[in-house]
Amino acid sequence: MIEYRGLKVALLGAGSVGSQVARLLLEHADELASRAGASLELIGIAVRDVDAPRDVDLPKELYTTDAEQLILSADIVIELIGGIEPARSHILQAINAGADIVTANKALLATHGPELFDAAEQVGAQLYYEAAVAAAIPIIRPLRESLAGDRINRVLGIVNGSTNYMLDRMDRFGDTMEDAAAVASELGYLEADPTLDVEGYDAAQKATILASLAFHTTVPVEAVHREGITGITKAQVDLARSEGYVIKLLAIAERIVDETTGEEGLSARVYPALIGREHPLAAVHGGNNAVFVEAENAGSLMFYGAGAGGKETASAVLGDLVSAARRHVAGGPGVGESTHADLPVLEIGRVTTRYQVTLEVADEPGVLAAVAGILSDGGVSVETFQQSVASSDGTLSTATLVIGTHRALESALAATVEQLASNAHVERVVSVLRVEGAE
Amino acid sequence: MIEYRGLKVALLGAGSVGSQVARLLLEHADELASRAGASLELIGIAVRDVDAPRDVDLPKELYTTDAEQLILSADIVIELIGGIEPARSHILQAINAGADIVTANKALLATHGPELFDAAEQVGAQLYYEAAVAAAIPIIRPLRESLAGDRINRVLGIVNGSTNYMLDRMDRFGDTMEDAAAVASELGYLEADPTLDVEGYDAAQKATILASLAFHTTVPVEAVHREGITGITKAQVDLARSEGYVIKLLAIAERIVDETTGEEGLSARVYPALIGREHPLAAVHGGNNAVFVEAENAGSLMFYGAGAGGKETASAVLGDLVSAARRHVAGGPGVGESTHADLPVLEIGRVTTRYQVTLEVADEPGVLAAVAGILSDGGVSVETFQQSVASSDGTLSTATLVIGTHRALESALAATVEQLASNAHVERVVSVLRVEGAE
Repeated sequence: MIEYRGLKVALLGAGSVGSQVARLLLEHADELASRAGASLELIGIAVRDVDAPRDVDLPKELYTTDAEQLILSADIVIELIGGIEPARSHILQAINAGADIVTANKALLATHGPELFDAAEQVGAQLYYEAAVAAAIPIIRPLRESLAGDRINRVLGIVNGSTNYMLDRMDRFGDTMEDAAAVASELGYLEADPTLDVEGYDAAQKATILASLAFHTTVPVEAVHREGITGITKAQVDLARSEGYVIKLLAIAERIVDETTGEEGLSARVYPALIGREHPLAAVHGGNNAVFVEAENAGSLMFYGAGAGGKETASAVLGDLVSAARRHVAGGPGVGESTHADLPVLEIGRVTTRYQVTLEVADEPGVLAAVAGILSDGGVSVETFQQSVASSDGTLSTATLVIGTHRALESALAATVEQLASNAHVERVVSVLRVEGAE
Repeated sequence: MIEYRGLKVALLGAGSVGSQVARLLLEHADELASRAGASLELIGIAVRDVDAPRDVDLPKELYTTDAEQLILSADIVIELIGGIEPARSHILQAINAGADIVTANKALLATHGPELFDAAEQVGAQLYYEAAVAAAIPIIRPLRESLAGDRINRVLGIVNGSTNYMLDRMDRFGDTMEDAAAVASELGYLEADPTLDVEGYDAAQKATILASLAFHTTVPVEAVHREGITGITKAQVDLARSEGYVIKLLAIAERIVDETTGEEGLSARVYPALIGREHPLAAVHGGNNAVFVEAENAGSLMFYGAGAGGKETASAVLGDLVSAARRHVAGGPGVGESTHADLPVLEIGRVTTRYQVTLEVADEPGVLAAVAGILSDGGVSVETFQQSVASSDGTLSTATLVIGTHRALESALAATVEQLASNAHVERVVSVLRVEGAE
C-alpha cells in the first residue's frame, strides 16, 4: 500500500454540484489519491443551514456554518456557493491563507476575475475554473494549455443549455417560443426567473471568460455586446430552416481589425445568429453545449458535451482538484492567468459579419431598385436576394424580401437598415439576423 | 521589456511537421515567450541531409546531422522524426541527459511507450505527446487532466483521417471503395503504401495510446483487436444509409466486465462499425477526426477537428512545448503516466455490442424459423428483422435478410454466424457489422 501525502480539502456549498463533489470525493478516495499523488481528505462542508435537506446523504459531522474557520485549515478550497458574496470574500480569504482554489462560479469570475487572479498571483496560489464554462466539457484547459502555442482567431460557443434546448425545440419540433419555454420550464431547464438565460446574461459571463483566455486580455463583462433570444419568432426559425440555417444563441469572441483605424482588437458578443446546417455547431441539440474554436494553425476544433448538471459539473471540479493536488505535491507555481496581449475590446459597430435581412415591401414597381440602391449606398453588398410569397391585405399587396449579405460592417448594416425602414416602399423590417460560422 | 529565462530547444526532424514547428518558433518567439514564461531558443534542427529541399525556408546554420551533440545541449527536445529508430534512441538519450521531450510519434509510443515513460520517471523528466493522437485536437490533456477526477467508461474515436475520408465519400457521394481510394490517393490522403491506414494499423496505435490513458493501464498494441476497411462494400454502405446508419472506422477503448468470470477489464479494438445518423460521430466528415468519450459523471463529450496536417500537428507540438517550458520554469515534476489501475485487457470474444447481420437465404418455407432458431440457440437476441428484395437466379429465388441484434457477446455472435453459414437454408453470409455508439 502506497502512503500518500495528505491534502486537506474544504468544500463551500452543498447544492446540486457540491453534494456530488462530496460524494465522489468520499466514494472514489483511493482512485483520486493514486491520480493526484496525494490523499484528498474532505475536512468539512460549509453551508448556511446544517440541517437543510440535501441531494446526497453525507456524514453529518462534515457540515459546518463556520466557513472562515474551515478555510483556514485547508490546502485546497472548492467554492461552489455561486453568486458574488460571500463567495468572493471566502476565495480572497483562502488565497491569503495560502490555499489553492477550485471554483465553478462564472458570475464571480466574469465580474471580479482580475481581482481574484491578481490576489492569487501575489501569493503564488492557483485558481482553477474548468467547471465555470460548459460544465464537464474541457475547454478552459485546452485554451490555456493545449493551444498555448497557437493563435486563436475566433471562438463560437453554444454555452447556455436552456436557450439551446428552446431553440432546438422550435427548430426540430416546430414549437413557438412560448411552447418551448413552457417545456423547458417543466423539465427544469429554466429557472423561475429565466432572464439570466433568455436575455443572454449567462452566455455573456461565459463569453467574458472565453474571450479573456483566448486573447490573453482582460475583457470586462460590460464590454460584451448582448442580445437574448426573446425576440426570436417561429417565422424566423422556419425561414432559417428553409434557407439551410438553424438559429443558435452564440457567445462569440473574435480577433478583428478595426477597419477605420487598422488597429487590432477583439470583439466579445452574444446574440442569436444563423448557422449553416453543415456547421458542426448546427448538430448540437437539446441542452448540450459546444465550443467551436478557430486557430491559426490548429484549424477548426470543437468541444462538445453536457453544459450543465450536478454530476457533470462535479466531474470538472474534481479534474481541477486533481490538478491542484498534483501541483501541491510537485511544488512551484502553476499556470498563471495571462493578459500580456491586452488587446482593445472593440464595440459591436466595428464587427463584420454576414446578415439576413427580411423586409415586407409594397409589391409595386421600383421597389427592388430602391432597396438595392439603399444597400449599395450603405456599403452593404448583397449575396442572395429572394422575393417570396406575396400576400394581399385587400387594398395593397405585400411581398417579402429576404436579403443575404456578404460580410459587412455592423455599423454600416445598422445605418442601412434604418434607411430601409424609413423608405416609402418598405412597410416593415421583419427581421435582421447575423450569419455566423462562415467566411 | 521583460527579461525571460532562456530555454534551449532542439528539434529532431524537419519534415512537414518539423518545418512548421521551426517556422512558428522563430516567427512567434515573443508571444511564445510570454506564454511560457521563458524565451524558447531553437538551437538546432537535426536532419539526415543538411542540403535536402524543405517546405519552409529556415536559416541554414540551424541544420546539423549530429543529433547526439545537439541533444546534449538542449533543455527540451522535440522529436519529429517518426518511426522507431533512431527516434527511440534519441529520446532515451535526451531523457538521460535531463531534457524534457515533446513527440508526435504514435508508432513509437504504441510499441515502446512503457520503456520511455519508465525512463522519464526515473530521472523526473516529462514526455509530452498531444500531437500523437488526432493532431491538433486536444485529447491527451483532457484525458490526463480534465477527466482525472472522473471514471471513463468508453472512448470511441475516428482517429484516421484517410479512411474517414474514403468512407465518407462512399456514404455521401456513392463512391465504390476503389473510387474513394483513388480520390484519397490523388489528394494525398493515402500514402503510396496505404496498408497502415486501410488495414487499421494506424488506428490501432492510437487505440493503444487512448486506452492506456483512459484506463490507467498499459495496453500493448498487440492486444488491440484490429480489422481494416478493405472488406467494406458499397452495398454495405448503402444498406447502412437506408437503415439510418453510417459506417465509420472506430478505435474503441471500453471498460467491460467479463461475463464468464465477473472480472473487470478493458477492451481495445479497431473495426469498421455502424453508427446511428444522430450520433455526433456520424457528422464527422472528410479527413476530420473526433474522439467521443463517455464518462461516469461528465457524461458524453466529443473532441473534434483536423486529424492531420503539418500546421495542425505543429500547433499541438507547440502547446506541449509551452507546457514543458512552464514546468522548467516552475520546477518540480509534472504529470506522470499512471498505470495504477492495471486492468486486464480482454480479448475481442469477451466484448458485447450490437450487430447487423445480412444473409442471403433461399426464399422457401421454414427459412425464418430456422434462422430465428439458430439465433435464439446461440444466445443472440433479435431487435429487428427485415426481409428485403427477393431476387431470382432462374431456378431458385433468393431473399436478403437483415438482422439487427440486441447486445450480444462477440464469441456467441461469432459461433452463431458459423451456425448460420452452415445451415442449408442460408446461401451466403453477406455481411456482419457491429453497431456502436448506442446502448
